[in-house]
This record gives sequence, structure tokens and C-alpha cells, in this order.
Amino acid sequence: MAAFGYRLIARDGRARLGEVTTAHGVIETPAFMPVGTVGTVKAMMPESVAATGARIILGNTYHLMLRPGAERVARMGGLHRFMNWPGPILTDSGGFQVMSLAKLRTMTEEGVTFQSHLDGSRHMLSPERSMEIQRLLDSNITMCLDECTAFPATPDEAAASMRLSMRWARRSRDAFVERPGYGLFGIVQGSVYPDLRAESAAALREIGFDGYAVGGLAVGEGQSEMFRILDVTTPLLPEDRPRYLMGVGKPADLVGGVMRGVDMFDCVMPTRSGRTGQAFTRRGTVNIRNARHQDDPRPLDEVCGCPACRQYSRAYLHHLAKAEEVLGLMLMTWHNLYYYQDLMRGLRQAIADRRLDQFAAEFAALQEAGDIDPL
Amino acid sequence: MAAFGYRLIARDGRARLGEVTTAHGVIETPAFMPVGTVGTVKAMMPESVAATGARIILGNTYHLMLRPGAERVARMGGLHRFMNWPGPILTDSGGFQVMSLAKLRTMTEEGVTFQSHLDGSRHMLSPERSMEIQRLLDSNITMCLDECTAFPATPDEAAASMRLSMRWARRSRDAFVERPGYGLFGIVQGSVYPDLRAESAAALREIGFDGYAVGGLAVGEGQSEMFRILDVTTPLLPEDRPRYLMGVGKPADLVGGVMRGVDMFDCVMPTRSGRTGQAFTRRGTVNIRNARHQDDPRPLDEVCGCPACRQYSRAYLHHLAKAEEVLGLMLMTWHNLYYYQDLMRGLRQAIADRRLDQFAAEFAALQEAGDIDPL
Repeated sequence: MAAFGYRLIARDGRARLGEVTTAHGVIETPAFMPVGTVGTVKAMMPESVAATGARIILGNTYHLMLRPGAERVARMGGLHRFMNWPGPILTDSGGFQVMSLAKLRTMTEEGVTFQSHLDGSRHMLSPERSMEIQRLLDSNITMCLDECTAFPATPDEAAASMRLSMRWARRSRDAFVERPGYGLFGIVQGSVYPDLRAESAAALREIGFDGYAVGGLAVGEGQSEMFRILDVTTPLLPEDRPRYLMGVGKPADLVGGVMRGVDMFDCVMPTRSGRTGQAFTRRGTVNIRNARHQDDPRPLDEVCGCPACRQYSRAYLHHLAKAEEVLGLMLMTWHNLYYYQDLMRGLRQAIADRRLDQFAAEFAALQEAGDIDPL
Repeated sequence: MAAFGYRLIARDGRARLGEVTTAHGVIETPAFMPVGTVGTVKAMMPESVAATGARIILGNTYHLMLRPGAERVARMGGLHRFMNWPGPILTDSGGFQVMSLAKLRTMTEEGVTFQSHLDGSRHMLSPERSMEIQRLLDSNITMCLDECTAFPATPDEAAASMRLSMRWARRSRDAFVERPGYGLFGIVQGSVYPDLRAESAAALREIGFDGYAVGGLAVGEGQSEMFRILDVTTPLLPEDRPRYLMGVGKPADLVGGVMRGVDMFDCVMPTRSGRTGQAFTRRGTVNIRNARHQDDPRPLDEVCGCPACRQYSRAYLHHLAKAEEVLGLMLMTWHNLYYYQDLMRGLRQAIADRRLDQFAAEFAALQEAGDIDPL
């Protein structure tokens, strides 16, 4: 079994081309991970997810622990087998969604107790239980349990929250069961305060992890603030480990993140937006529900290789959206995931060719130019 | 371009093995047509529909005339191109659904005016307009506009309704524009009255059609009554034309229909039931939402060749249904359509082998045996 590891292949500025090796396969980075919340990337067959170019998906510990339950997934052979996704899987720790979805939360040094948003049942999440759940799910990349610091937070609030997360990181590391091809990532917190980010990064490096995530961003601080924090944070992370920017983001966020040395991303945006009729394209976003598409025989994007663009008109996609047909969710999701993966392919190639600045400029110009004119 | 036609290949009792040739391909019969109501077989990519073995699908004139509109579909190159289904398409006349879905209907000899159930807009359907719409959709098999006689109906009501349908059949025939590879089907009405069915069949044969449908069944009369009417109706239809039993049905209805000389069927049951968690299997129906499946690692049916059975457990399908995930709709629909097509493949082979009685007996025994025991 291959050891879990990161190999740096090439650089362009601070951007990195590399690969992450796991027990379930190799991931070329920079990589975007589609979100498979509750054991399915919504509205997609797993082979279709793979066909977009995705090599790793994300599962949500909070959702899966409540339904169907981590022990049940383990009895079914783990999440890969349960959901028919043979490739690598990263799971979050559950902490973020406990804070955003669960009811009646009680937070202590030990962990957090809460009520399920589904049926009101009581549950507990601690660093130790989070590690156990992620092991039961058979996740290739386990995330430390942390507290995603609220935004905005005062320096004192941010420091207290970050230090709790660092104590939990230590406990997560201690509870994590090492297995070949499986890794544990620490999460840098510290809100928008560079000194706290530095303290957090140092604490995590002291513990030692297989990868380092940047958490607590994309929570309302805006893109320029996010980039400012990334600028001071990624240089503090070890060169020989992958870096993961959690919950990010829009296409322009991915380009900016890659240019600041990020290797991995995840976000519900391509899947969730697809289900509401919003397409991400080379020329920016397109709302397919808009009446201007109803007689348009052209594809969403004439150079896109996804089935939605190769085999269907805007008029048809518009019709599906208006009629609230399931196929509309399927095709729009497929397009968005394909576009995201295509963007990542472009970014990787640009790093390999040492022309990332040019790629980013062309990307921005096309996005700014906007959608094609109506017929 | 191939002429529209039917070729009888083999018989077993009254059952017929044959093929229907259209401008968009050949259909082996007996055939089951999945319903693609509004330009999509719900929750399925069209290539997946084809992968189940379906060679022809049905489109609903009522739905399509309201949204996206027949003229719009025609501007987009017809329904095949619009929905990316290159194979044959049959459209109904719109009459049945005007009666079941539209509001403020006014019925005259000329036709029916009604309000859309979607937006209240006023529309008219006459034999001439139904022919025009179906031509705009580019339907390979056009259905005459008829009145689906209400059930129950007195002999007088049934006779009056049937005779109106026969006058509309004449007008449909006159308005239908002949094109190579395209056909027009008449529809036998007459409720549960053999003499009216005979009068209707004779009237249609007098006009002359490319195929003959049996309408006004599966409307509440029950399976034994339906079979009784089929027993007296199919012998009245020409041997050299396909026969189509409209809106039928459950698997046992298909077997019984084939044994009574029916060549074509359509029904929303496999698709609609799939979306509510009901699977059709060799061993009868299975409600995947039932808690007994939640820890069951076995497939719905261990010999089924569909993706839902080959790659997923009952536990996973149960989970998707409980979590109301789109993939659950997709997989359950796929299974049901595959099962229906597999049943039709079995029926065709049994006719070819002259062992249809044996096939039907084995089918009934397995259905009666019921689902596998819980673990």
C-alpha cells in the first residue's frame, strides 16, 4: 500500500504543481474536490463525477454521522464502497456544520453536544469521536476537529477560539489511527489576524500533520481580505505537505488561491448553484432560467466538453429549469463540475508551463467580458 | 428513408414478435415505451434510457404544447434534437391529459378549449390542431385525437363518446401529413362494451391507419375486465399493423397484454414509482423506504443488470430515499426502466422460442413468491 504523501512537481511563483498519494489513488494538485455531502455528489452518478476529471470528493462527517450513521457505513464496507466511489475521499471534521446546522449546541473544552437538525436526537462530537467517525467512514484524508471561528471576531475572541482548536488538533493527532495511504490534516485558524495565523501555523507544525488546511476563511470577510490572509499564511506552511483552503470557492477564488500556493479546494458552489440554474462558464455566470435563453439553440459554452454543452441547447436547459425537471439538475451540475475541473486542468498545465500569470490574466478578461450576446 | 411499417416475425398463440420501422429506427415488439412527459424521461439521461434497452419513448402533447410550446420545439429542430433522443418517438394526442389536468374545459364537436394548469392561458385542441402539434414535434407515431371515455359509462354514454372519437379519427386522418417513416395510429374506444369496441374497430379499419391503439382501458375497470375487453378487441384489428395498449401498465398487465396480441405499451408507472421509492423486480414490488433495508448489503435484485443493482446495496438505496437525494430518483428510475425492458426482452425471446406460456407461468410464480427475506 502506498504511503500517504505529497510530491512537489513544479512551481510557478508561489503556485505549486504536485500530487497527493492515497490508498485509493493519486490526486493531481491543484485540485478541486466536489462535495458529496451525505454519500452522494448531488444529482450525479459517481462515474459521471469521475468523468468530469474529479479525482477526490469530500464527505460531510456531520451529515453522515446522523444519517445513515458512521457505524452503518462501516458495516457496509466504508464510504467508498457504500457510495460506489473508488477514489480518494476527504471528510471534514463535522465541527463546521454542527455550528451551522445543529440545534441546542453546548460547547465545552471536551467537545460539543448538540441535537440533530433531522430528528432532534442528541449527539456528541469531540476530537476523539470525530477521528473515530472519520475512520469508520474510511476517509483517506481526515480533518482535525476545530472550531471555525465566527466572523467577525475580536482579536481576543479569535485567539481563544484558535487556541481551543490547537488543543483539539493535538487531541485529534493523538486519537488518529495511522494507516498506510491515509492522512490527517491540521487546520490553521486565527481569523483575519496575521499574528494569530502565525501562532496557529506554528502550533500545527509543532504537532506535525500530513497536510495543512486554512480554515475560517470564506465566511464573509470578502475576497481581498481572504487573499491577504492567504498571503501571510501559506508561506508559514511546510513545503513538503499539501495545503487545503476549506470551503472555497468561486472560480476567481480558485485562481487566486492557486497563485497563493493552495493545492486543494472544496465548495458546494458548483453543485448547489447548478441546482438553482446558475452555470459557471469561461465568460462568467449564466442564469439559465432567464427568458433570454428560451429560444437560444446555442450551448451554454461552445467549447465546453461536458454533455450539457455538447448535446443540449440553452433553450432546452432553460426549459428543464422552468419545468423543474430532475434532468435539469443533473445537466447543470455536470456542467458546473466539469467547468471547475477544466479550470483546475488549465491551472495545472499553466503551472507546468510556467505561464500562470498569463493564464490568470486571460481567465479574468474572459470572465469580465461576460456572457455571449442574446441572439 | 424507410417507409413506416410493421413486420410480423413470429407468433406464439395470439402473441406476436415483430418490428416497427420508423424514420428514426426500428422497434422490436412487443415493446414498452418509457414516458418522457415534457421532453425528458424524468431523472434519466437519454443515453441511459437507451441503455436500458428502450428503443422508443413517448412524449405528451398536452404538456409540450403548453411548455415549451410545439412551435418552439419545431424551431429547435424537433423533439428528437431538442431532447437529444435520436430514436423513435410516439406522441399522444393531448386529449387524455386535457381531460385530466386542464381547467375550464369546453367540449364541442369541433374540439376542446381549456385553460393551462400551469398559467391559466387559453388553448384549443382539435383533431387538426393535434395533428399539427404532433407534426411540429416531429413525432414518428402520431395518435389521433380522441375522447378517452370516462369510466364507468353507460352504453349510451360510451357509444356517443366513441362515435365522437371516430369522427375525430376521420378528421385526424385527413389532417395528418404523410411523410416516409412516420405513421398515424387510430384508437379503439367503446368502454367495456364488446359491441361498441367492434363498431369502433370497424370504423377505424374503414378509415385505415398505420397502427391501432386500444384506448379507454386501465381507467379503473380492473385487470380482469381489461383482459376481457382485450380478448374481444385485438382479434378485430388487422394482422399487418402494430397494436398499442395505451397507458398500461404493471408488469403482469404487460405479460397479459402480450399474450392477447398487444405489441406496444406505455406507462408512467416505472418512472413515477421509482421516484417514490417503489421498485419493480422479478419477485414483485419492493418499497426501498422500508426500514428492513437499512442494513441490507444485498442488491435490489442480484441478477438484474442495471447500475442500481450491480453497484449499490439496498442499504444505500434506502439511505438515498430517506435523504431525498436526487441520485435515489435516478437509480430507482433506472432500475425500474431496466426491469421493464428486461421483461420485454424475455417476452420477445419467449415468443421466438414458442414458450410464452411457460415464461408467463414462471413470471407469475416468482412475482407471487415475493421479495427475499430480510437478513
